[in-house]
Amino acid sequence: MIDAMEIKITRKETSGLKDVVLENAAFGRHFCDHMLVANYADGAWSNPEIMPYGQFSISPANAALHYGQSIFEGIKAFRMAEGDIAIFRPHDNWLRFNRSAQRMEMPSVPEEIFIEGMRKLIALDAEWVPGMLDHSLYIRPFMFAADPFIGVRPSLTYTFMILISPTGPYFSQPMRIYVEDQFVRATPGGVGFAKTAGNYAAAMYPTNLARQKGFDQILWTDAQEHKYIEEIGVMNVFFVVGNQLWTPSLESGTILHGITRDSVITIGKEMGLEIREDRITVDELVEAYKSGELREVFGAGTAAIISPIKELVGANVNMQFDVDSWTVSPAIKKRLNDIRYGQAPDDYNWMVSIY
Amino acid sequence: MIDAMEIKITRKETSGLKDVVLENAAFGRHFCDHMLVANYADGAWSNPEIMPYGQFSISPANAALHYGQSIFEGIKAFRMAEGDIAIFRPHDNWLRFNRSAQRMEMPSVPEEIFIEGMRKLIALDAEWVPGMLDHSLYIRPFMFAADPFIGVRPSLTYTFMILISPTGPYFSQPMRIYVEDQFVRATPGGVGFAKTAGNYAAAMYPTNLARQKGFDQILWTDAQEHKYIEEIGVMNVFFVVGNQLWTPSLESGTILHGITRDSVITIGKEMGLEIREDRITVDELVEAYKSGELREVFGAGTAAIISPIKELVGANVNMQFDVDSWTVSPAIKKRLNDIRYGQAPDDYNWMVSIY
Repeated sequence: MIDAMEIKITRKETSGLKDVVLENAAFGRHFCDHMLVANYADGAWSNPEIMPYGQFSISPANAALHYGQSIFEGIKAFRMAEGDIAIFRPHDNWLRFNRSAQRMEMPSVPEEIFIEGMRKLIALDAEWVPGMLDHSLYIRPFMFAADPFIGVRPSLTYTFMILISPTGPYFSQPMRIYVEDQFVRATPGGVGFAKTAGNYAAAMYPTNLARQKGFDQILWTDAQEHKYIEEIGVMNVFFVVGNQLWTPSLESGTILHGITRDSVITIGKEMGLEIREDRITVDELVEAYKSGELREVFGAGTAAIISPIKELVGANVNMQFDVDSWTVSPAIKKRLNDIRYGQAPDDYNWMVSIY
Repeated sequence: MIDAMEIKITRKETSGLKDVVLENAAFGRHFCDHMLVANYADGAWSNPEIMPYGQFSISPANAALHYGQSIFEGIKAFRMAEGDIAIFRPHDNWLRFNRSAQRMEMPSVPEEIFIEGMRKLIALDAEWVPGMLDHSLYIRPFMFAADPFIGVRPSLTYTFMILISPTGPYFSQPMRIYVEDQFVRATPGGVGFAKTAGNYAAAMYPTNLARQKGFDQILWTDAQEHKYIEEIGVMNVFFVVGNQLWTPSLESGTILHGITRDSVITIGKEMGLEIREDRITVDELVEAYKSGELREVFGAGTAAIISPIKELVGANVNMQFDVDSWTVSPAIKKRLNDIRYGQAPDDYNWMVSIY
């Protein structure tokens, strides 16, 4: 299959890399020389094309702009200790992407377009992949409705693209998080588990209210009772309680199935932590905090990696943490990075070489 | 203010009207010769421009495609009995548009751009406005995030556009509606009241499941218990029960504040119906159906106008109606149309002339 798929490549004449200082590249600002594009029509995908990164033409009646059929993924590639480049768990992102697609009534994207397209694209722009710790190549596959039609129905045509962008740390400081008890991100029967555009837009107003109170992000709670914790919108959330690692379970369908989340659970087990995936109440956390058992709190996500939370505050919650004294989450982050940067054996077959 | 706002107009060289049969114009397919565009940057709106309808250039990192900050309105203009053209309640849509904007953390659009821009645009393409009953000019104002940046945060730049399109009836046949008890459109604390892109995408998969069972649309129920009815996604819903007109109340924040909904309530009062805006349970409806009190069920929306529902079916619901025998909803529709087409006095000042 892979050999059979032809990718037409149109090279950019002059690389833009000379204008970018990779050490300082802020998240989402700089894009590599090339992008990948494939189109879906009449029930089938075209062969992807790799072309210079740049603007494209769209109809003002584009169905994605009006009705939001749009999904994406976030993936990272790393420059390994030996100098070669590998992508972290792209097949898991591919599977999640297609689960999002199904919920949003969009077509699946074949593995060869998603994975092989990505590998070839990165190989072409390999010089853009930073080599410094905490730096990587951010990979953004996305798909959106392409019909120029403003009736409410699933689009018949779609565009799939992959953008790549050099990036450094996403949240550089320990975070202050607000425990939400009024606004809602997701509800059972909704689209919370799908990585779809509308979930992010819906969170912006409540997040801005929290920012005005001095917080960085929101910890969402369940839609029914605001009693169970869910996720942080751009991160899953973890709690080190005694010798346990707690994180909300996925059954409700309201939480993104994080690949970093899954990796943290795997590493936690390896480190001898007892994993508790469960419905977790705010009250339980308060109790564990008061008893001194709640030692560390962190967010986990592709962009955020492992981000310590120094403050968790809400209507009946006020927790402060001395992040500098932590040992568990820094060890998880180091273990994860050792694998991702090729400084430890890839015991779980997480890394996919681009060549 | 109105006189002060300059609108640059670039005319299309040759009108496309000659290629369109207005009598047969399907919803959302044909667009008039011109569109209006205004841009928001540095905290201010540019003067709008009217230009030929057509494709525009967008960044592959466009924030609306990735994170769904996108809202719209649906409005209609009518060719009146005397031949002049008037827009139905555009100020109400403008107010709702800006409520949607606030929830989605987007800037307000000034009245002069929204209303005066629309009037001037329609005046330029006046020949496109159909004159037949049940036909009208559909007006689609929309706004989307314009930043070429894939970090999750509210965009700093936005584009506002108005498209116009000649249209006939949206749902031509009485509808079969499925009462949903698994999937969820909206939850209190969410964005259900906002006319935002993601709400429509989220409904497509459940709606498709209902279509596979032979239904046209879904009647959504509340996220908590699936016990209270809400709306049909592209329409509000009404029930004629004895001498009462029932419709779900708006307090939950999960239902679109329909302008047609409000107009139906006004006309219902005028006709001597007792209005019940309330939380309405599925069980109550079943009871009213069994007792013979539930006489008519219909959807109300800008695109749908007044659409009779001949069948309402769900887990514990099975109602059939003889639509041909109805008198109340046809009278409401006639009264609404008489005002909109200028065949009755505009008692409520609903019509805004374009000149």
